[in-house]
Amino acid sequence: MFQVDLNSDIGESFGDYKLGLDEEVLQHISSANIACGWHAGDPVVMEKIVEVAAKKGVAIGAHPGFLDLMGFGRREMVITGEEAKAYMKYQIGALWAFAKSKGVRIQHVKPHGALYNMAAKNEMLARAIAEAIYEVDADMILVGLANSQLMKAGTATGLKVANEVFADRAYNPDGTLVSRKQEGAVIHDTQQAIARVIRMVKEGKVKAVNGEDVAIQADTICVHGDNPKAVAFVNEIRKALEAENVQVVSMASFIK
Amino acid sequence: MFQVDLNSDIGESFGDYKLGLDEEVLQHISSANIACGWHAGDPVVMEKIVEVAAKKGVAIGAHPGFLDLMGFGRREMVITGEEAKAYMKYQIGALWAFAKSKGVRIQHVKPHGALYNMAAKNEMLARAIAEAIYEVDADMILVGLANSQLMKAGTATGLKVANEVFADRAYNPDGTLVSRKQEGAVIHDTQQAIARVIRMVKEGKVKAVNGEDVAIQADTICVHGDNPKAVAFVNEIRKALEAENVQVVSMASFIK
Amino acid sequence: MFQVDLNSDIGESFGDYKLGLDEEVLQHISSANIACGWHAGDPVVMEKIVEVAAKKGVAIGAHPGFLDLMGFGRREMVITGEEAKAYMKYQIGALWAFAKSKGVRIQHVKPHGALYNMAAKNEMLARAIAEAIYEVDADMILVGLANSQLMKAGTATGLKVANEVFADRAYNPDGTLVSRKQEGAVIHDTQQAIARVIRMVKEGKVKAVNGEDVAIQADTICVHGDNPKAVAFVNEIRKALEAENVQVVSMASFIK
Amino acid sequence: MFQVDLNSDIGESFGDYKLGLDEEVLQHISSANIACGWHAGDPVVMEKIVEVAAKKGVAIGAHPGFLDLMGFGRREMVITGEEAKAYMKYQIGALWAFAKSKGVRIQHVKPHGALYNMAAKNEMLARAIAEAIYEVDADMILVGLANSQLMKAGTATGLKVANEVFADRAYNPDGTLVSRKQEGAVIHDTQQAIARVIRMVKEGKVKAVNGEDVAIQADTICVHGDNPKAVAFVNEIRKALEAENVQVVSMASFIK
Repeated sequence: MFQVDLNSDIGESFGDYKLGLDEEVLQHISSANIACGWHAGDPVVMEKIVEVAAKKGVAIGAHPGFLDLMGFGRREMVITGEEAKAYMKYQIGALWAFAKSKGVRIQHVKPHGALYNMAAKNEMLARAIAEAIYEVDADMILVGLANSQLMKAGTATGLKVANEVFADRAYNPDGTLVSRKQEGAVIHDTQQAIARVIRMVKEGKVKAVNGEDVAIQADTICVHGDNPKAVAFVNEIRKALEAENVQVVSMASFIK
Repeated sequence: MFQVDLNSDIGESFGDYKLGLDEEVLQHISSANIACGWHAGDPVVMEKIVEVAAKKGVAIGAHPGFLDLMGFGRREMVITGEEAKAYMKYQIGALWAFAKSKGVRIQHVKPHGALYNMAAKNEMLARAIAEAIYEVDADMILVGLANSQLMKAGTATGLKVANEVFADRAYNPDGTLVSRKQEGAVIHDTQQAIARVIRMVKEGKVKAVNGEDVAIQADTICVHGDNPKAVAFVNEIRKALEAENVQVVSMASFIK
Repeated sequence: MFQVDLNSDIGESFGDYKLGLDEEVLQHISSANIACGWHAGDPVVMEKIVEVAAKKGVAIGAHPGFLDLMGFGRREMVITGEEAKAYMKYQIGALWAFAKSKGVRIQHVKPHGALYNMAAKNEMLARAIAEAIYEVDADMILVGLANSQLMKAGTATGLKVANEVFADRAYNPDGTLVSRKQEGAVIHDTQQAIARVIRMVKEGKVKAVNGEDVAIQADTICVHGDNPKAVAFVNEIRKALEAENVQVVSMASFIK
Repeated sequence: MFQVDLNSDIGESFGDYKLGLDEEVLQHISSANIACGWHAGDPVVMEKIVEVAAKKGVAIGAHPGFLDLMGFGRREMVITGEEAKAYMKYQIGALWAFAKSKGVRIQHVKPHGALYNMAAKNEMLARAIAEAIYEVDADMILVGLANSQLMKAGTATGLKVANEVFADRAYNPDGTLVSRKQEGAVIHDTQQAIARVIRMVKEGKVKAVNGEDVAIQADTICVHGDNPKAVAFVNEIRKALEAENVQVVSMASFIK
């Protein structure tokens, strides 16, 4: 029996600003990455969304990012390892309080946006992030790009790690993502995307841009809830996985 | 044997901005109220100061305030109970992560500045603050102004509470503080201040501005580390207390 | 010939967060209140919206608010007159740079949300706001609630002022707005709202909640662009005004 | 007769956080770079410091930086040209309002910290910064590192530019600064630093790290007011310049 996790970023609203179809996407996913107030989200949003996720039985995770609400955490910032570590702890802790008060635990931690991308390549940052989690709670699972420095650092630090894959993205022969700046980086055909992700889960392989097969560990699939079309795709991918005897469950069930 | 706690606000630096003689005042106090990044403090400052406090054996507490760095959390803001609750949890959680990673616990929570003053009088706010702490961790002690709404709300919610007194402030006949806007609100004579605080601890009484004795519970005394003179006063008050057989210990030792 | 201005708050998006149908409402209004980055708006949003307003020939104004993005500037904060003055100047200046670079001028200044409401009643705040504008540019028109302290302070300071009225709000016998907390504060019947506003413009009168007629100066009417229905109402009110021979023009045309 | 400008960063305090000996350093400099509230400074600080500078006859300039108070604007952020342009305008405008209300003009604009360093090398960013200033007020002088991309972009855009030199820094043979990460980057000998700067002003040359003479245009010398020692050095350098018949005047006197 195959198992995989479906994760999505939620709780990205801020004050009067609403973003994302949180309630809808929570119907389909197994793990929710909750913004922690730095690049998105605010405490009132966090309190509500943790409660909703807890009621629906969706596992929650911290989704820490750069302190850059204006850039939605998508702009690279040059920070030290000491800063990265402290920023991670701060945001994980903030979410912890809401989880604790709703009687649930933080299952995982997935860095957001530019922090995620930088940590995929920057060993120093990757290590700082992994150590931050380890020092706060060694049971939390680190989610990062499959085949990235972040996954290596997580394992080296002693954390459980979940390799994240993307249904709609092309891969390089070394297992990394094709940059969005290059043509063909995004796969627009839904059926092709679903077929690729099923193969990643069941065979541990994906066809890279040069036509070669690449080994890839697919623990959790990143999906989106920005708009009705995206939510419909999540529903579709979930059904397709289940039709192929792939069970969609929260990553803590199978990441040990 | 009498026991009392000495608490001081620390960790109020922010980025390149330095504030307070944290290391010095930590030599004398038993409990440290650590800023949580909203009105003062930042994650790097929090990480360092929690480590220093842990090493010195000073008990740590969260010192949450309004999201108003520009006003140092000293300006009143009209917020709802739902907002107050979420803001408290967020900041307590943020500090928790640093405490957890240094192997210590959060002993207490003391609201800062305008939030402290508003919660002393505003029942709705007081209750929201007390409930936030209770929902996160019912073992944390709520520190507030002796005889205030906040202490009542804490007790009603089921929290342990620590009544805070001020050595250098005059009291009204109802046990509340004389407003700083009124003459005689601040006691400038050091010896008189020390004598008053010792009487509060040993006899549970303080002479109000009208000359009457008022009942007051002195669980913890608020002291400051802003400048060398303030730190010297903390040393002096501690010695005077010990000379009077009053043991200075962290509040968790005697608040049950 | 009667003349009146129609104003609306625009430029309230922030980063990835979109708010308001700016382009649509700009078709109908004569004056745009542009958020200055404190309670809403950001520099990129400001640059774009000033350009659009300039092209459409809609007069622009600064819409300064409290530094409270999380509360959208709708929460009261206790600040000093010195702070209010400096905060006003900062935000007016920020908008000035965009206006200057697009070849247009700032026609007016209208405080936002809680700042607007507080300044309607608080004389100290009203004076600080008026003085800030006067010191930066005595030609800018101060927009505030008709019959409020802010209008009095503006006139006393030597500013030109524009009295703002609301089509959909009930009035007290003293010409102030009925609080939203009271029943009947909002007029839901569109035709009634339009009839009231036309009477305010043409007769300078409005029927208060107690049935008495109150004198009111209607220089500019506040309208909204939050949703398609609101924009449709703006279109409707404009047509109704024009059908009644009331010319809708930017306030600088007739406020001298 | 030789002429040179002495500039220093001032107005870097924020709320309760005090930084720099502004009043003292203003005694000696001819141009003040005033923080605009993004990496340092706040509106109340800006209002006060503009008034003090105006009274002392020191020319003022905008000192815009990244929106990163926690990192004091010293951390690189990857932003687009559109963002850079809007961020520059916003901060220049904010300062403009204070200058306008005190009856003085903004003489110059000098980007701060990481923005300054990035703009010295990054052509896109340099051009965005230059264009922002040009669009707001083509009379403002752009201050940047001598021989940098920023100076080239300023000239190409049609701005007047002031080449900034450092008394205490070593230079590469191409006229750029030796990185602080390299040994010998900072010149600690005061007399040597002064001799170098005088030669830069009078001969337009500086000896690079490899012993060769490099051509350098010294329009303005960067000095600091962080501590009493730094202020004393400013006094010393000013006296040494005057003893060598170099007049210290604000850059607008000779940059045409």
